[in-house]
Amino acid sequence: MANLARLARNGDLREIREVLCEYDVPGIVDELERLDSFARAVAFRALPKDLALATFEDLDPPLQRELVEELRDEAVTELIADLDPDDRAGLLEELPAGVAARVLSGLDPREQAMTTALLGYPPRSVGRRMTPEVIAVAVDATVGEALTQVLDQERHAETIYTVAVVGAGRHVEGVVSLRRLLVTEPTTPVAEVMSEPVTVRASQRQEAAARVVADHGLVAAPVVDDERRLLGVFTVDDAIRVLQAEEDEDVARSVATNPLRRPYLSTTILELVRSRILWLLVLIAAATLTVNVLDYFEDTLAEVVALALFVPLLIGTAGNTGAQTATTVVRAMAVGDVRFGDLPRVVGREAVAGLFLGLSLSIVGFLPASLVAGRDVAIVLALALLVVCTLATTAGALTPMLARRLGLDPAVVSAPFITTFVDATGLIMYFLIAQAVLGL
Amino acid sequence: MANLARLARNGDLREIREVLCEYDVPGIVDELERLDSFARAVAFRALPKDLALATFEDLDPPLQRELVEELRDEAVTELIADLDPDDRAGLLEELPAGVAARVLSGLDPREQAMTTALLGYPPRSVGRRMTPEVIAVAVDATVGEALTQVLDQERHAETIYTVAVVGAGRHVEGVVSLRRLLVTEPTTPVAEVMSEPVTVRASQRQEAAARVVADHGLVAAPVVDDERRLLGVFTVDDAIRVLQAEEDEDVARSVATNPLRRPYLSTTILELVRSRILWLLVLIAAATLTVNVLDYFEDTLAEVVALALFVPLLIGTAGNTGAQTATTVVRAMAVGDVRFGDLPRVVGREAVAGLFLGLSLSIVGFLPASLVAGRDVAIVLALALLVVCTLATTAGALTPMLARRLGLDPAVVSAPFITTFVDATGLIMYFLIAQAVLGL
Repeated sequence: MANLARLARNGDLREIREVLCEYDVPGIVDELERLDSFARAVAFRALPKDLALATFEDLDPPLQRELVEELRDEAVTELIADLDPDDRAGLLEELPAGVAARVLSGLDPREQAMTTALLGYPPRSVGRRMTPEVIAVAVDATVGEALTQVLDQERHAETIYTVAVVGAGRHVEGVVSLRRLLVTEPTTPVAEVMSEPVTVRASQRQEAAARVVADHGLVAAPVVDDERRLLGVFTVDDAIRVLQAEEDEDVARSVATNPLRRPYLSTTILELVRSRILWLLVLIAAATLTVNVLDYFEDTLAEVVALALFVPLLIGTAGNTGAQTATTVVRAMAVGDVRFGDLPRVVGREAVAGLFLGLSLSIVGFLPASLVAGRDVAIVLALALLVVCTLATTAGALTPMLARRLGLDPAVVSAPFITTFVDATGLIMYFLIAQAVLGL
Repeated sequence: MANLARLARNGDLREIREVLCEYDVPGIVDELERLDSFARAVAFRALPKDLALATFEDLDPPLQRELVEELRDEAVTELIADLDPDDRAGLLEELPAGVAARVLSGLDPREQAMTTALLGYPPRSVGRRMTPEVIAVAVDATVGEALTQVLDQERHAETIYTVAVVGAGRHVEGVVSLRRLLVTEPTTPVAEVMSEPVTVRASQRQEAAARVVADHGLVAAPVVDDERRLLGVFTVDDAIRVLQAEEDEDVARSVATNPLRRPYLSTTILELVRSRILWLLVLIAAATLTVNVLDYFEDTLAEVVALALFVPLLIGTAGNTGAQTATTVVRAMAVGDVRFGDLPRVVGREAVAGLFLGLSLSIVGFLPASLVAGRDVAIVLALALLVVCTLATTAGALTPMLARRLGLDPAVVSAPFITTFVDATGLIMYFLIAQAVLGL
């Protein structure tokens, strides 16, 4: 909305409010994400209070931080007090320590304690994202008693649809859905209707927990400590957010950029450049390998200039083939379809697939290549395609799996790195084949 | 589990059952997905009946189809009768028409009617994924009456946590959560506690509906027709599945492969090759452009062979820069951060970012390049990097946005195509700059 940006620049709060109030909360969030940070703060101030609270809650933490920096102290305290404990922990992490401390001290003691507890968990762990406001019923209660306990705790709970059943020391014995409680005879013991609990650990990575919630089709999962004591609850809406953030990151890393961690239009050009330049420098440094290879084979190249004609096509094809494999394997690892133990199987499959692909491309490319550059160079190209495609798929499968084994994010070392590696080794193969076939 | 594959080959059903029963349902699904289709059928037969039903429900439709083809007719009818109507529609779509008709005729009339209704919606529409088993209460009911109506319909409902409030002709007037109903005084009219309904349309694309559910943090959304009459409900677990399938597809398309639509290890090598070969052929055909360009500038190349040294580095960098932009923009469009109307803004930002990136790379690369190939060629390379990076980011932003406008999936024409295009145009720039600077 260029319109909204203009209204914000003119400070026309009444009109901004009218425009924004035609949207629902996700719509308002969308619109705010498209403004620069100054205009966003102006537009935000124009929102009626209840909408402002709901909107603030749904903004990405970096945008929340910017807003907090633009607003007056009282407004900030109120906004932050109104967040769920997990969202609050996410925001406080973003804020400069001084501001975070001031905000924390403005909370009531109960909220303060919950937020501090969450901040004690490692970043990106489930502990940071759970809400401690979980509903629990005693394992020796009847269904009727359990329902009463649920409704008693309702005011302070994020969800009441998934109920943890706990024994001594808040040890989680089972889970029962509110639905089950409602359709069961009130005198039945809870222990008889509860099911084996699907729990997540507070110290676990958020992404792993989110996949558990998604794979089991849950509305929420109880969060436990290592002794399986109840700490909180991790809900499906948080799981979706985690999965989407993870996806954003994987997509960014697959083309060697740092994740922006905020909506595209809310980034500055400088942030875009910063997210990309480092990796480009690394890749260009790696690409100097290709300069060395060509330099080494300069005599061969000078003798048969026609060889140079096919260099971009050959390394382009190798790069595409390698990227296909790397991205497929990275994705299969991310969704849990492939584990490290599958390495021999995966590499074997991909090597064979690469051979097939190289063979097909060689056959299709042979005739056109001989027309352009003669039969001999065409033979060189065909053999090179065969070797290079096999090399590319093998490297494309091996690299991400080994990276994961070494504790690196496989996405970081994927497609662009494999492309650059395959460029250099592919060129070596090409010239070695040329020397052999052409007798240079 | 090589172990499980071996047991399946030996047909050792009792041991297979023991191994599989140590997993929960998502675990069993994981294990089955790693087997070939014969072993999968054997292992599946070893499952106790209740686990078999639950497992079958969670398999991808292509794997369900293969199982159905391996099992006896009575077993199949039973499995399919037990599926939710939306899952059943998904499977029937996969089956050969004759088998589908036989399966349909084996269902009881109520289930048959529901399934046929779902199959009437276009593929990938919400209608195919919703369940018609939705809970509705009358808008003129009290909260107490509504609760009774909910519990009366419970047995046939997929979820009872989101309740549609309907008026005359099942027109959706609002939505109320079960939680709200439970904590409200029973004599209060439902109309007073219901909220503005967030609905999705049966004819809408599944992905768009899934984003609505995700963005609003819903457990379920009522599905309506174009007159806003209640047809069914679309639940968050289906929304997650849709988003993940969409993500699988986008990832595949981003490196020019066709989506596998099934877990990696359950595909054959031939299927892997098939998913990639077509696009590789298209890309290699496009790459012949680079052969033409080099052919055209062969004299320049023969005169200054040092120019050839930097060809892979230059086009590699251009490709990486273009891929970064294209993938970032495709993702921003997919999550709704960028729309077609933003085209001038996006292209402008990316062109400036490209200029910055090119400038930085030129500055860093100049000294090393002059050491290898002399000052003049280094000047050519620096200027070429500047031009080519700007070209790459601009093309990377423009292509996916125009593709979307033309009704194509932007992911299909993204990174690899842009890379190939930028390879060819980048080479032209490089040689034109070389001719100008070196006075050839």
